[in-house]
Amino acid sequence: MSLLLTGATVIDGVSETGIDGRSILVENGRIVAIGRPDDLTIPADTETIDFSGKFIIPGLMNANVHLFINALFETLVRYEGRYDDLIAEAAQVALRAGMTTVFDTWGPRRALMAVRDKIEQGEIVGSRIRCAGNIIGFDGPFSGDFDSRIPGIGTTHFVDRVNATWVENTGRHLMWLTPEAVGDEVRQYIGHGIDFVKYASNEHGGTSAGAFIQFSERTQRAIVEEAHRAGLTVQSHTSSVEGLRMSIEAGCDLVQHCNMTGPTEIPRETLDLLAQGECGAVVFPLTDHGLAHLKESISDHEWTMWKASDANARNLIESGAMILLANDGGIFAPEVMQEPLIKGTWNGLPEEEALGRLASGHFVWLRAMEEKGMSPIDLLRAATRNIAKAYKVDADLGTLEVGKIADMIVLDEDPLRGAKNYESIHAVIKGGALVDRDALPERPILTAELPAPVEEEARFKRSLHHGERLPGCPTCLNGTH
Amino acid sequence: MSLLLTGATVIDGVSETGIDGRSILVENGRIVAIGRPDDLTIPADTETIDFSGKFIIPGLMNANVHLFINALFETLVRYEGRYDDLIAEAAQVALRAGMTTVFDTWGPRRALMAVRDKIEQGEIVGSRIRCAGNIIGFDGPFSGDFDSRIPGIGTTHFVDRVNATWVENTGRHLMWLTPEAVGDEVRQYIGHGIDFVKYASNEHGGTSAGAFIQFSERTQRAIVEEAHRAGLTVQSHTSSVEGLRMSIEAGCDLVQHCNMTGPTEIPRETLDLLAQGECGAVVFPLTDHGLAHLKESISDHEWTMWKASDANARNLIESGAMILLANDGGIFAPEVMQEPLIKGTWNGLPEEEALGRLASGHFVWLRAMEEKGMSPIDLLRAATRNIAKAYKVDADLGTLEVGKIADMIVLDEDPLRGAKNYESIHAVIKGGALVDRDALPERPILTAELPAPVEEEARFKRSLHHGERLPGCPTCLNGTH
Amino acid sequence: MSLLLTGATVIDGVSETGIDGRSILVENGRIVAIGRPDDLTIPADTETIDFSGKFIIPGLMNANVHLFINALFETLVRYEGRYDDLIAEAAQVALRAGMTTVFDTWGPRRALMAVRDKIEQGEIVGSRIRCAGNIIGFDGPFSGDFDSRIPGIGTTHFVDRVNATWVENTGRHLMWLTPEAVGDEVRQYIGHGIDFVKYASNEHGGTSAGAFIQFSERTQRAIVEEAHRAGLTVQSHTSSVEGLRMSIEAGCDLVQHCNMTGPTEIPRETLDLLAQGECGAVVFPLTDHGLAHLKESISDHEWTMWKASDANARNLIESGAMILLANDGGIFAPEVMQEPLIKGTWNGLPEEEALGRLASGHFVWLRAMEEKGMSPIDLLRAATRNIAKAYKVDADLGTLEVGKIADMIVLDEDPLRGAKNYESIHAVIKGGALVDRDALPERPILTAELPAPVEEEARFKRSLHHGERLPGCPTCLNGTH
Amino acid sequence: MSLLLTGATVIDGVSETGIDGRSILVENGRIVAIGRPDDLTIPADTETIDFSGKFIIPGLMNANVHLFINALFETLVRYEGRYDDLIAEAAQVALRAGMTTVFDTWGPRRALMAVRDKIEQGEIVGSRIRCAGNIIGFDGPFSGDFDSRIPGIGTTHFVDRVNATWVENTGRHLMWLTPEAVGDEVRQYIGHGIDFVKYASNEHGGTSAGAFIQFSERTQRAIVEEAHRAGLTVQSHTSSVEGLRMSIEAGCDLVQHCNMTGPTEIPRETLDLLAQGECGAVVFPLTDHGLAHLKESISDHEWTMWKASDANARNLIESGAMILLANDGGIFAPEVMQEPLIKGTWNGLPEEEALGRLASGHFVWLRAMEEKGMSPIDLLRAATRNIAKAYKVDADLGTLEVGKIADMIVLDEDPLRGAKNYESIHAVIKGGALVDRDALPERPILTAELPAPVEEEARFKRSLHHGERLPGCPTCLNGTH
Repeated sequence: MSLLLTGATVIDGVSETGIDGRSILVENGRIVAIGRPDDLTIPADTETIDFSGKFIIPGLMNANVHLFINALFETLVRYEGRYDDLIAEAAQVALRAGMTTVFDTWGPRRALMAVRDKIEQGEIVGSRIRCAGNIIGFDGPFSGDFDSRIPGIGTTHFVDRVNATWVENTGRHLMWLTPEAVGDEVRQYIGHGIDFVKYASNEHGGTSAGAFIQFSERTQRAIVEEAHRAGLTVQSHTSSVEGLRMSIEAGCDLVQHCNMTGPTEIPRETLDLLAQGECGAVVFPLTDHGLAHLKESISDHEWTMWKASDANARNLIESGAMILLANDGGIFAPEVMQEPLIKGTWNGLPEEEALGRLASGHFVWLRAMEEKGMSPIDLLRAATRNIAKAYKVDADLGTLEVGKIADMIVLDEDPLRGAKNYESIHAVIKGGALVDRDALPERPILTAELPAPVEEEARFKRSLHHGERLPGCPTCLNGTH
Repeated sequence: MSLLLTGATVIDGVSETGIDGRSILVENGRIVAIGRPDDLTIPADTETIDFSGKFIIPGLMNANVHLFINALFETLVRYEGRYDDLIAEAAQVALRAGMTTVFDTWGPRRALMAVRDKIEQGEIVGSRIRCAGNIIGFDGPFSGDFDSRIPGIGTTHFVDRVNATWVENTGRHLMWLTPEAVGDEVRQYIGHGIDFVKYASNEHGGTSAGAFIQFSERTQRAIVEEAHRAGLTVQSHTSSVEGLRMSIEAGCDLVQHCNMTGPTEIPRETLDLLAQGECGAVVFPLTDHGLAHLKESISDHEWTMWKASDANARNLIESGAMILLANDGGIFAPEVMQEPLIKGTWNGLPEEEALGRLASGHFVWLRAMEEKGMSPIDLLRAATRNIAKAYKVDADLGTLEVGKIADMIVLDEDPLRGAKNYESIHAVIKGGALVDRDALPERPILTAELPAPVEEEARFKRSLHHGERLPGCPTCLNGTH
Repeated sequence: MSLLLTGATVIDGVSETGIDGRSILVENGRIVAIGRPDDLTIPADTETIDFSGKFIIPGLMNANVHLFINALFETLVRYEGRYDDLIAEAAQVALRAGMTTVFDTWGPRRALMAVRDKIEQGEIVGSRIRCAGNIIGFDGPFSGDFDSRIPGIGTTHFVDRVNATWVENTGRHLMWLTPEAVGDEVRQYIGHGIDFVKYASNEHGGTSAGAFIQFSERTQRAIVEEAHRAGLTVQSHTSSVEGLRMSIEAGCDLVQHCNMTGPTEIPRETLDLLAQGECGAVVFPLTDHGLAHLKESISDHEWTMWKASDANARNLIESGAMILLANDGGIFAPEVMQEPLIKGTWNGLPEEEALGRLASGHFVWLRAMEEKGMSPIDLLRAATRNIAKAYKVDADLGTLEVGKIADMIVLDEDPLRGAKNYESIHAVIKGGALVDRDALPERPILTAELPAPVEEEARFKRSLHHGERLPGCPTCLNGTH
Repeated sequence: MSLLLTGATVIDGVSETGIDGRSILVENGRIVAIGRPDDLTIPADTETIDFSGKFIIPGLMNANVHLFINALFETLVRYEGRYDDLIAEAAQVALRAGMTTVFDTWGPRRALMAVRDKIEQGEIVGSRIRCAGNIIGFDGPFSGDFDSRIPGIGTTHFVDRVNATWVENTGRHLMWLTPEAVGDEVRQYIGHGIDFVKYASNEHGGTSAGAFIQFSERTQRAIVEEAHRAGLTVQSHTSSVEGLRMSIEAGCDLVQHCNMTGPTEIPRETLDLLAQGECGAVVFPLTDHGLAHLKESISDHEWTMWKASDANARNLIESGAMILLANDGGIFAPEVMQEPLIKGTWNGLPEEEALGRLASGHFVWLRAMEEKGMSPIDLLRAATRNIAKAYKVDADLGTLEVGKIADMIVLDEDPLRGAKNYESIHAVIKGGALVDRDALPERPILTAELPAPVEEEARFKRSLHHGERLPGCPTCLNGTH
């Protein structure tokens, strides 16, 4: 069966502007023709949808999501055995929000691949998934890289199982090895069926806020070579100016959150390196409101870092780097979102500024980068064509061109007249099929309401105990830390 | 329908010895006759079971179990919403092990009462439950009384819910109140339908190993009065010689683990007080082997405490106190039982010495007290008649007498010839019905096997990281604590 | 040599008002006559000081100071071997501030007694000291009662030495013993030469904010009896309504900070018990400004406690209890006073409201209690006669009467016309001798200026590192707790 | 005045063997002649010492000591203001033990330079000191690099002062900067007068046991260039195979503890790189006994690391690298040496195997490397000539040659016949002057006896409290961690 979309302004991502009055003909999930209605040959059984007054753009992509982001001990216990369900829920939230393809850059490999394959085979609906599994070099959720408090609190049985699920043979252990030996381990990991490789150029949780270098330049090159030899793209987790430079020079196809370089702005030399090469530059920007809000709840030191990340985002636009939209998008459990620890993170901001939310963070991204001076067409490409290019899937995805997979978003408002308009989603078409957005997610778990308090809670709250420490007494230091 | 048990030696708990060749006739769940076969009038539709060569004793009781004992954060998350199932499983494990009635002295009140009622109404099989809910004065599982590390690790949403479920209006908060006000709160709590009251005479987890006094003598008397006014028995959690003495004088019907008084032996005066009154004395004894084993893994200070507890157990036997069998019996999750933290507790001992296990700890108790010199008939009474007396249910339970509920254990070996023989359970009869022990527990959860390791675990274990701290370096103190 | 003080208004603490134009004749340190100048017989070598226009009151006393209050690990290390010097400094600060006698209710016994004796023998100048050493039942500075973080950070060698210095045989260990055995230990401790006994009716640092009971009523009575048998007064540390009631009934001569009873106000029955007996009631009041200030930095729970303590102070005035001035007065090291942990304590308030400062807190006390409605003469007596009575030293101290030790404060302004006027100290006379206040403290240590930053500090501060945790990342939970 | 040493076997470090019957003539602190007695022209006022039967070797050197090693919070508080005294004591302990020159590779710069200069100017006696101050890239004693528990326990005032004293402008902060900016900071630091530069190629305390890379290769080269431009040698702190390789390639003059590379042995390529270049290879070896002992108290993971370090030591000997003696030699406070945390470090071994002790660890080194197969003359050179070469002070030090500074050790036994014989020190001559070894250290502080327990300690120990946690109870998890 064929599908004909008529009447809309088509913004194909190739041209600099939208073109009015073009129809798009889709067959077997791919675009077979784009043109004036009169010029098209329409097969007999074609269904036609009139999108007059609407705007059609390529399906949005996200270069960095975590469909399973809940590394918190409590949530990992609670949802053990249901990882697939949570990932499917997230893939449906993403699709509903206009993302037809997402690149999952850290998570439990087997579960991610299982859901990826089910979506691919049409067993379930969801955003198209490409995934990396673990970030090469990171230890698991219950380790110095994420939450080192848990060993000793969780049972060894569970702690080991969770860490193994995330890490397999690719953890911090690799830092001890020679470049060749690291290459061997990466090759093994690739063999399990991941779609691309992500490694740590900088540490995640080594007590130095991201400043440590995780792998030497030679080891980074060895990892890149293994990925490329297997035909996969490769990217790095970076968080300092040297970690960034090293991974570009090592040959990465893209670099994650490259505007986050601690308190130091990216030097001109590295900006040029990015602009001249083909390496995709993922940026994590905050809106001006978001930055102002965050400033309230963080220390001066942290603020210095955010200021530098903002300057970097502006400089990257100005330097001409190939910028990619991404946001670590994920769905935290609702009880986690209420926690103080979420404050001071980009997820703790008010919803309209919260960069990291899977359902809405990409809209924040677009508004934030618009504020910083990115042009309308560049915004669109950051969310579509650039991602496809960097991940080397541009033969199939990223623009509206004949021969490509028919992933499209239909908007009520013109996205080239304001980033805000990306939120006016009228319809989502993935692989040539109209998505029933209202049905998504089909089985809400993390997006469901929190259960009501238990009956005992009211009595309890009325008679809470009054603390640990003798009030006011300056000699009792227990419980003050 | 009636049931006639013939051929066995009947040890009724009243007489000092067993009587051969007595038959027991049961109707409507109660004993209607005991006597020589020829003397009994047997109704028409009576089923007869020949227990020739066997020994029939009253159903065993346990004066202190925790059908839900898993206060560990991980297990509480994992089994949220399934408390009833875990309690039912435990009640079935208890019944299978010969305990026809158990007194649950700390746990989640609503879930315990729900299972209690289902068993009472015959909806499910299990040991008869009587329960107290919270120990008056204790805060919840995630507090200074149990595990103060969890607030800050668990979400506030969950931490509050769990603490509320255990505590309601009866936590540490009560320590701030006047005796009258504490009485009011206890009265409210009783109103929810608990079977007896347990309060803290000593602290559980106040950083002083049980030495702090939780409530003044006047407050203790106020609590006792409220319980008695409502027709309930009342007991205390004690762990020091003064905490013990105070609660006996306050009028408790029984005192828990009264041999545990820190490093100090119970003074003669208090032994006499116990012996002369009607207050039941729960003892937690270890076998000689168990004590020797424990000594290996604990500090000298802790050992001093265990030595005193052993001397107390012996002195209580000698002084003539009404001793009750109990053991904090519960089922820990299998992954928890593997944890180092279980070592150094009475659950960490080898199975044949492990006092605290629900399925077998009562047998340990009987052998331990036999070692310390308790007579065979006193052992039996400690496990049956004394518990019924102290809990004031001796009109119905505790001995084999006409009119009482037909709870009986049939043993292959003579229990009066060795405590070991209690383990030779041939059959369990509860409320006049033969229990299908092989079917219990019907739905194993905590008693099920641990799941096999996930596929990733093997790879992970082969490439574990090598620690946190530069090996050997005496100047790096991180990770040493 | 004799001393004649002329011209002042004498407020002797006995009469309800001051009497103008009285002279006071002092010989050998005691008052030998008070009267109109013409009525007195003046020895030949008498020195006369004209205090016309001034006001003479009895030397101020403080019923609860800690001349050595720095239980913080860092300060204990720093001043090891210099405890005597710090205590002498504090005794001189106290004297300079008008306190001719102070009762030290917790500190290192040997050092306190050594300074006490040197002052007594005239070897050094300072406030007259009476001391209790440890609070019976408390463990040392590096324990659950004060700072449980230190064992494991400090060396065992030092930790044991410090704890031993404070505790000797009187620590938490006593909670395990029978009342008789506790009595024996207290008798031993008295034998070392302390001046009075202080014991814990409530816990200090047992994770329950002061709510636990430390000793049973019977043990409290045993302690009181030992003290009285030795001719010493006895007092308790209380922090709950039951802890307070129990210690009054046990026979204490005075009770410390009896207005601090957690979130619960002292019931009428206990107020009456205090008013009818002879037990001195130490109150720790805050000014209205102080309370308002504190409210800003504490939780709602803590505030509930402060509100109750304020209501208690007002009710104690109204009920007619014998109220004593005291404030836990001590001198914290200046670097400690800058720490955040001091916030939220009564020492962290602005200087004019900070109750706990040795040099000025008694003035805060007088203003605070004036605000709450205490009459001018009662304020004076709370700071003089009442303390002497409760401590049973009123034969020698507390009022200006013939035969008493000549401890006097000369004020520029009339203290009966405003509590603020106690700060207008013109002269201090102790034991009949004029104190050279300007010379005190003779060797400033804790009252000295903080040393200037080291030369390296400027460079360091310009290049501080930026933290532990990847900023903004909600998945890295290290360093968030 | 001149000095003539006669009769000894001279092992000059140049020849492969000792030469009997040579005399050494010293003038103005330098060797002016070595030869047969008859061939020498002896000035008139020459003092002659007959060392017949003895063995004269060059003064021993140590390529890595920490004259101030006590970074423990307690000791830093205790000895504040006395750093110079502790350093002087250590320099005298070193000299007494035969080390005429020591290279201090981490410590408080100003204090080290002050003592260095006093010794240089003859104001005090001691080993010749060359020092680096901080290790470029490390944060201070109270940081993630050493002891992250202290901020929050120590006062901010003190914590900042100590960290600043060690770090100045050279801490972790540098990891954020570009290579050029790091170079600028290093240049500034050099300007304060250090003797050589040491930087971190691997982390010290970043939660990954030394595996993280601290600086990129480009930054490492920038640091090396700054040092060389200033005429200083430069070395790295390494602890992984990649960290080691990177710093050799960056141009280091020597690398510290290069045999410590985690669980991985140094690959052949890197061994060759070392052997072919001029980079000095510091080795930290343990004796076989020491290794066996250590194995008892450490985990399997740690043991894997020690095994690799042992294999590395052997391979470095075999490969022909220029090996240097060093041992992190320092004097820990005696109370620290009793702590459990010292166990599992190379200082916690029995004295004859304890590599890290300043007074004896170099003897352990010599015996350990002898066990591993190093030849007698190579052992001598590792302790003398090689160190002088790597530090580029071989024009003055390292061998007994005419024109060099007269640093000599006189031994009773022949060091070429057994490493044990280095301990038979008969005399130490530094700068041509005989050292009065018996007088050293002149003012023992850390080498003094621990003070006796205070009087209160005996009473305290007899009545210690019995812990925090209810013994045996598996539900109370407080105090178990």
